[in-house]
Amino acid sequence: MRNSEVAIIMGSKSDIDIMQKASDMLDELEIDYTMDIFSAHRTLIELQQHIDRINHVPTFKVIITGAGMSNALAGAVAAQTIKPVISVPLSGGKFKGVESLLSSVEMPPGIPVLTVGIDAAKNAALAAASIIALYEPEVESRLCIFRQQQADKVLADNISFNNH
Amino acid sequence: MRNSEVAIIMGSKSDIDIMQKASDMLDELEIDYTMDIFSAHRTLIELQQHIDRINHVPTFKVIITGAGMSNALAGAVAAQTIKPVISVPLSGGKFKGVESLLSSVEMPPGIPVLTVGIDAAKNAALAAASIIALYEPEVESRLCIFRQQQADKVLADNISFNNH
Amino acid sequence: MRNSEVAIIMGSKSDIDIMQKASDMLDELEIDYTMDIFSAHRTLIELQQHIDRINHVPTFKVIITGAGMSNALAGAVAAQTIKPVISVPLSGGKFKGVESLLSSVEMPPGIPVLTVGIDAAKNAALAAASIIALYEPEVESRLCIFRQQQADKVLADNISFNNH
Amino acid sequence: MRNSEVAIIMGSKSDIDIMQKASDMLDELEIDYTMDIFSAHRTLIELQQHIDRINHVPTFKVIITGAGMSNALAGAVAAQTIKPVISVPLSGGKFKGVESLLSSVEMPPGIPVLTVGIDAAKNAALAAASIIALYEPEVESRLCIFRQQQADKVLADNISFNNH
Amino acid sequence: MRNSEVAIIMGSKSDIDIMQKASDMLDELEIDYTMDIFSAHRTLIELQQHIDRINHVPTFKVIITGAGMSNALAGAVAAQTIKPVISVPLSGGKFKGVESLLSSVEMPPGIPVLTVGIDAAKNAALAAASIIALYEPEVESRLCIFRQQQADKVLADNISFNNH
Amino acid sequence: MRNSEVAIIMGSKSDIDIMQKASDMLDELEIDYTMDIFSAHRTLIELQQHIDRINHVPTFKVIITGAGMSNALAGAVAAQTIKPVISVPLSGGKFKGVESLLSSVEMPPGIPVLTVGIDAAKNAALAAASIIALYEPEVESRLCIFRQQQADKVLADNISFNNH
Amino acid sequence: MRNSEVAIIMGSKSDIDIMQKASDMLDELEIDYTMDIFSAHRTLIELQQHIDRINHVPTFKVIITGAGMSNALAGAVAAQTIKPVISVPLSGGKFKGVESLLSSVEMPPGIPVLTVGIDAAKNAALAAASIIALYEPEVESRLCIFRQQQADKVLADNISFNNH
Amino acid sequence: MRNSEVAIIMGSKSDIDIMQKASDMLDELEIDYTMDIFSAHRTLIELQQHIDRINHVPTFKVIITGAGMSNALAGAVAAQTIKPVISVPLSGGKFKGVESLLSSVEMPPGIPVLTVGIDAAKNAALAAASIIALYEPEVESRLCIFRQQQADKVLADNISFNNH
Repeated sequence: MRNSEVAIIMGSKSDIDIMQKASDMLDELEIDYTMDIFSAHRTLIELQQHIDRINHVPTFKVIITGAGMSNALAGAVAAQTIKPVISVPLSGGKFKGVESLLSSVEMPPGIPVLTVGIDAAKNAALAAASIIALYEPEVESRLCIFRQQQADKVLADNISFNNH
Repeated sequence: MRNSEVAIIMGSKSDIDIMQKASDMLDELEIDYTMDIFSAHRTLIELQQHIDRINHVPTFKVIITGAGMSNALAGAVAAQTIKPVISVPLSGGKFKGVESLLSSVEMPPGIPVLTVGIDAAKNAALAAASIIALYEPEVESRLCIFRQQQADKVLADNISFNNH
Repeated sequence: MRNSEVAIIMGSKSDIDIMQKASDMLDELEIDYTMDIFSAHRTLIELQQHIDRINHVPTFKVIITGAGMSNALAGAVAAQTIKPVISVPLSGGKFKGVESLLSSVEMPPGIPVLTVGIDAAKNAALAAASIIALYEPEVESRLCIFRQQQADKVLADNISFNNH
Repeated sequence: MRNSEVAIIMGSKSDIDIMQKASDMLDELEIDYTMDIFSAHRTLIELQQHIDRINHVPTFKVIITGAGMSNALAGAVAAQTIKPVISVPLSGGKFKGVESLLSSVEMPPGIPVLTVGIDAAKNAALAAASIIALYEPEVESRLCIFRQQQADKVLADNISFNNH
Repeated sequence: MRNSEVAIIMGSKSDIDIMQKASDMLDELEIDYTMDIFSAHRTLIELQQHIDRINHVPTFKVIITGAGMSNALAGAVAAQTIKPVISVPLSGGKFKGVESLLSSVEMPPGIPVLTVGIDAAKNAALAAASIIALYEPEVESRLCIFRQQQADKVLADNISFNNH
Repeated sequence: MRNSEVAIIMGSKSDIDIMQKASDMLDELEIDYTMDIFSAHRTLIELQQHIDRINHVPTFKVIITGAGMSNALAGAVAAQTIKPVISVPLSGGKFKGVESLLSSVEMPPGIPVLTVGIDAAKNAALAAASIIALYEPEVESRLCIFRQQQADKVLADNISFNNH
Repeated sequence: MRNSEVAIIMGSKSDIDIMQKASDMLDELEIDYTMDIFSAHRTLIELQQHIDRINHVPTFKVIITGAGMSNALAGAVAAQTIKPVISVPLSGGKFKGVESLLSSVEMPPGIPVLTVGIDAAKNAALAAASIIALYEPEVESRLCIFRQQQADKVLADNISFNNH
Repeated sequence: MRNSEVAIIMGSKSDIDIMQKASDMLDELEIDYTMDIFSAHRTLIELQQHIDRINHVPTFKVIITGAGMSNALAGAVAAQTIKPVISVPLSGGKFKGVESLLSSVEMPPGIPVLTVGIDAAKNAALAAASIIALYEPEVESRLCIFRQQQADKVLADNISFNNH
């Protein structure tokens, strides 16, 4: 396993399309990451070993999980680490992500999971970057530029709309 | 750990009151059980050891879990055993058990959890008994008597209501 | 009616596509089953006769029901047998299976129904197998192999994803 | 069993308090009724016998059912009669009557159930009366008077509120 | 306006497709009906005049309404008649009929509306027929035949499924 | 009927407690109002007469309605006036105001209702004042002062909290 | 920025299609408006400047906002103006507009937002017109004509349906 | 304003009781914090000034917000900072915190908010600590001890339960 700053873990191969919005965003912010598939139900032992490695490698600052349905993944990871865990509830299940969102936020007191919106992998990456930016000024700069570009885009949309 | 036929596991001390409806029902049906508190998030290692013991003791036929909130317990148990797992979603969380119910039923394909109603610990015990009764004629007899008593109670209620 | 170990009952011809995921899984595990269509509302008498036969044939160990909308089927079956009843709530109705799920779990105390996820016929079959495996070592072996294959598939997906 | 015009059936002794709002309303409209407790799950055979008697007694014009949780009662009655069935979903369950309402309205095509609001036993009685009033002019008159009294009450409330 | 036994009223031209399932069913049962479009919000005066005519024509036995969104129609009709009103909540709105269902069942005490499932126009027609059948033996006969045909269809489906 | 600027209409005597939060707020802003009880279902004719009078009195600028359950009131008023109608959905029903909120917002295109929060009668009054303030500078001044007082209250709370 | 009577503000370029139903309706009623894109989250400063200008231009009578997801826009606008704010919750988010509706109605006491249905931009425009019509007789006339045309359309639909 | 590591902001004085669970937890972990009341709707300018100060003080690492109802606070803070923002949705509103949760997670892409459970202020503090622990070994140690104590508590509960 390579060392990096963010560990992305998803529960199934079918989650790749959504979770790559997180890795794309991290690429854009030039933050290094690993990305793996481990099911909390089907490969719990290997998941535990994976988290164990992350726990022992100080470069890892944040873990991002992505899972749908009962979303045991976010909690299973959070239960085994004290590094910050950001959960992306995925919409694949019969309740379109609501079940995964509720599982992710309704954690018992003492085991926090930080949840973003359903399928909101891009925001998970940005939140991870905001943590890394606390101690890495270049990441902070890139985040500031990203924010400004977002604002400029809206303002340009408005001008374009009113001039069309 | 004593050997018995049903292993009841609950996620927190606060679940005892509801889950004792299961043990009371098993007592009534003269089915032996163990009853333990293990949190899937706070004591995952010990939970895994507990399930491991259950897996290796052939007398254990059914596992009943009771947990609220994100209810990782049911899935964590089901992921580590091929014995039947009956989950009682508990109503303690902010969504009054709905979140626990959804976590319990929305399992990934391949890892089944058998779910009863929110807080329905008594029905979990009766379902466990229905499995044991497949091979233990005395349990089958007791279940039949229990069913008949239920019916008799309704019929007596009707007579009493119409004669009052 | 042939004798077998699992009786699958569905409420309507339109339920066949989903419920065949259960029969496919049982085929894979080499468990014998029957599969019938009986509506709890339209053919209650015939349904009762069918359950009566199942009750009197000791080879039958588990009943799996599949029904959508108000899902009276699961409860109607459970009310007339003390064999374990596994319900698959189906998503055909206006509430996309939620109404069927609630009907299935919110049974009165004393009449248990064991519910899996909406349209989760495959998990129903696996749960039925877990009950049969308690007393049939070959089924137990096949279940263990199936579980291991599932885990291997996730691990292979991860390797393949990281090497692509 | 006495003969009457309306047959009220409830699923459990605990439903009496709500369902007596129906019988009180029928008393007020001087409509004769019977009132019985039969569980669709616990006493299905006796329920079927009860409906059979109702079907063969021409004085019975309407059946009112009251049940909570999965509310199999309304559908079980409707499946066995072609007389109009009015269902009162009751709020006793974990979903506060929503599960009972959904079960009651989401009937399969061909087996109609006429549903009123959760715990709205009084409206069930008034709807039954509206059916009987089609052919009994005195009931029609009493219904008209009841409606007028309701309107007068609102108008009097307004005057009293504005003069206080 | 022709006189008939059932008055079908829908709130908008866009409701015709669903509501014709009701008129088709009434045609099959040889029950005469009228069918009109009146919006409770856009044409309240004309709706009131329409109900007034229905109230004064004794051949009319039942009113069926079909409306989506806030479904004021069912309540507006029920408020002005003491004839039985059957409401079909329609799924056109942003909440897919749930808002229309809640409006339809959550009527104030004293003004009953009899509600069937979302878009369940066929069941509304069958329920109307069940009321008319109380006093018209030929309708009763046709309803019995319809029920038997439904049952036969399920039984035939089962035979065909098991023989394919 | 007195003439005033705001007409408050509520559907039942039981709505007075909540709706007086609106009249209290209007009193504080020195805006004149009338307040009446008319049920859209029980007293539709009188409600129509009431709106007719409001329509013909130019001093009336805004109508505030308050009703629970299926909340036909808001729509019935809006359907008969082109003056702005502000609806307060009330929480009295079995769905705790959700049904009333949905009825209030899910109006057909062409008949607008302006909805505030469940039981939010105070905000309805403030919104009515914001309309009147467009042409009455003293009301505008009072609204500005009210807003400033609200802000001052929060700032004072913060100081007090940090100094306690 | 041009001066006009209605200021339409939307949160994103993707909201244009829905919000143009509002501008189309205002065009039809010959009411002048401006239409801009400002995100409450991405361009809060510019949004505040925009509202500031609106506050200081007396021709502006009503603000219409359109935003999806957490819909901060409606509240951010309402918090900075005492002119009436009409919110159109948009359906773009994962909860199909429900989250935007709840954000829009569940405002704190003191900061009113007037909410119409999900995506109901046309009704927002009509409600804005109803406010302007209080003081502009030509707008009042056009609203009356619009209402009459709506009613005529329904009546013509009915005649056409019954004659086809 | 004192400098510290965590800035807790709540929207109203009424949120103090819940949010003090966060400050109590930070006290226990010996992490310094500030705690202020600013409403995003009532005191937006002052809130912006407050965030501006936080942005310019490098000691601040994490912001925790607590707000109910439409919960504009979390988004308003996140929109103005690139420091990590953890939101505690509060249950005070008519939807018992669900509306606040949805507002908190359904943020537009680009402006991340990290959400914990409804009223879960303690977990918010623990998540903030997990971020600080990345660079402060003593906090990391205290978190590890806290986790171990939690686990020990569950194990002790189990022993005590089985020995009682």
